[in-house]
Amino acid sequence: MLEPGAVIGILGGGQLGRMLSVAASRLGFRAHIYEPGINPPAGDVAHRVTTAPYEDLAALRAFAASVDVITYEFENVPTAALDALEALRPIRPNRRALAISQERIAEKEFLTGLGLTCAPFAPVGSLADLQTALARIGAPAILKTARLGYDGKGQARIMAAADTVEAWETMQGAPSVLEGFIAFSHEVSVIAARGLDGSVACYDPGENVHQGGILRTTTVPARLSASQRSDAVLIAARILNALDYVGVLGVELFVTPQGLIVNEIAPRVHNSGHWTQQGCAVDQFEQHIRAVAGWTLGDGSRFADVVMENLIGDDIARVPALARERAVSLHLYGKGEARAGRKMGHANRVVRGIT
Amino acid sequence: MLEPGAVIGILGGGQLGRMLSVAASRLGFRAHIYEPGINPPAGDVAHRVTTAPYEDLAALRAFAASVDVITYEFENVPTAALDALEALRPIRPNRRALAISQERIAEKEFLTGLGLTCAPFAPVGSLADLQTALARIGAPAILKTARLGYDGKGQARIMAAADTVEAWETMQGAPSVLEGFIAFSHEVSVIAARGLDGSVACYDPGENVHQGGILRTTTVPARLSASQRSDAVLIAARILNALDYVGVLGVELFVTPQGLIVNEIAPRVHNSGHWTQQGCAVDQFEQHIRAVAGWTLGDGSRFADVVMENLIGDDIARVPALARERAVSLHLYGKGEARAGRKMGHANRVVRGIT
Repeated sequence: MLEPGAVIGILGGGQLGRMLSVAASRLGFRAHIYEPGINPPAGDVAHRVTTAPYEDLAALRAFAASVDVITYEFENVPTAALDALEALRPIRPNRRALAISQERIAEKEFLTGLGLTCAPFAPVGSLADLQTALARIGAPAILKTARLGYDGKGQARIMAAADTVEAWETMQGAPSVLEGFIAFSHEVSVIAARGLDGSVACYDPGENVHQGGILRTTTVPARLSASQRSDAVLIAARILNALDYVGVLGVELFVTPQGLIVNEIAPRVHNSGHWTQQGCAVDQFEQHIRAVAGWTLGDGSRFADVVMENLIGDDIARVPALARERAVSLHLYGKGEARAGRKMGHANRVVRGIT
Repeated sequence: MLEPGAVIGILGGGQLGRMLSVAASRLGFRAHIYEPGINPPAGDVAHRVTTAPYEDLAALRAFAASVDVITYEFENVPTAALDALEALRPIRPNRRALAISQERIAEKEFLTGLGLTCAPFAPVGSLADLQTALARIGAPAILKTARLGYDGKGQARIMAAADTVEAWETMQGAPSVLEGFIAFSHEVSVIAARGLDGSVACYDPGENVHQGGILRTTTVPARLSASQRSDAVLIAARILNALDYVGVLGVELFVTPQGLIVNEIAPRVHNSGHWTQQGCAVDQFEQHIRAVAGWTLGDGSRFADVVMENLIGDDIARVPALARERAVSLHLYGKGEARAGRKMGHANRVVRGIT
């Protein structure tokens, strides 16, 4: 169990790192942010910031030597960087969680290996692979690079067999995966935590609405039957235990008449868990810090209904009006330029009085 | 109304400055701390720290030039420092609030001038003054330096006329004030805020228990009748309006059968307001930042019963046990050495489910 005054190293200085830094300070810890970009949002509330690329092994080693434990706000950290860090300090959540979430095929094989249901999928390494896979899975389907953030190359929808050539060209030869579409009524996510002692705590599932590929709102409670709610929590717990996970994990689930289907997992605090800041005694950020610091997990039971709304791009202009709404708690990220699609902050709209 | 990205200058880098910094970040502002001591607690969560004494006018001017508005976490800022700062940037709360709270006689004359009741008092400039004053006010009484923090010289209790010579010598010739003892059943405090637009918001009064001159616990709700509760809020509002105050103010009140007696006022966020972090949508720190930034005040209505307990000195050893209590929210200040009497953190123990 880390003592107050210990230093938590955080890879990534965006808004998640920012809110993790604040949570660390609340428990008496200091945050040291490692971030390639200058003036990261987390820098405003961190004890220390290292500005260096993930390829700078000397900077990574100096960072590791200055901290007591290492965690991260995003999963796309290069393997060589992790090797350098892990030689010096524990990384929580562990390498296996990171490796699985960086690689879509490994993730799906891990999940189905646990007996969980994912969308039908097939690895694709060539146009011929893609045609075979589409024949099996059927259109519509979506082709994605197998690795996350592979030079920013994106995704391609395939509505019919005629789309295969163009879709495959979009991948620029990168190893890919074809995923079948799922007929789901809505998406929920479970934010769950596991401590160093193996104890597990799950937050109440939230219901997510996306717009243009970006999370727009998360609402708690989600529309789920009691058995769906229980299934969602058990799925998250099974994943945490299988990975010997330490920290907070986000699990996105599609709700279908045939049950819950795992969309993807994120080995970190998650945008769809921001509602916990107003809905729970211990929010996802403090819960994550407690876990990686080896503390006992905190009380994550929900005591309010909350709608979390992301403030994206020009939404920042709504802040004066939102600041006047009594039910709204604002969380702004201190980002300078309100570019389209950029997450500038979020607003938690709260209904209290439930027990 | 300050825009996100603006810089809030905060004089003082203790735990109050630390929690003000976090609140500023939540609203998208950056905090710049001015603090003579090295490694201040607020430095862990501030965008920038200036380490310089209050006599360094060049450092003060550079600080002022780098911020958009100036506030403070403690009231004992030298006049020359304030003069230098005020020439460059607005100071909120204003100079008059500071001047009054720095000088006990001015404070009492201000309060009684508003029609409020204080303990009987008399200015004392000599032993003869003291003897005359004691004859009028009666023993027991307490002799205090008229100015706050006058070289750390303290206070002297006078239980009988025989104590006057020793008491006066304790003051070392400093202008002083004799205060009569009040027979009070308990002490409460009101944390109140006033916005730049003149709107006022008061938190529910808390009941304070001190030990050895240090606040030990604050409990909400306080033991007050409905009319006492109303009186307490009206007293705070009268003070705020009379001072054309902007920010959060703490008012300590003695509860007596004859009504509420004002003990003292503090022109800043106040230890007895820390319960608001778990009891209100907008806590005293965010409320203060909202006010000094010219935002509308937030919702300070109470939605939980809370007992705030200060963790003082060796109490820090109780943190592992407190971290396991489900009803407890911990707030640690990141201070290195747990000296006796040093405030290391606080714990808010919450009873939810009230509306």
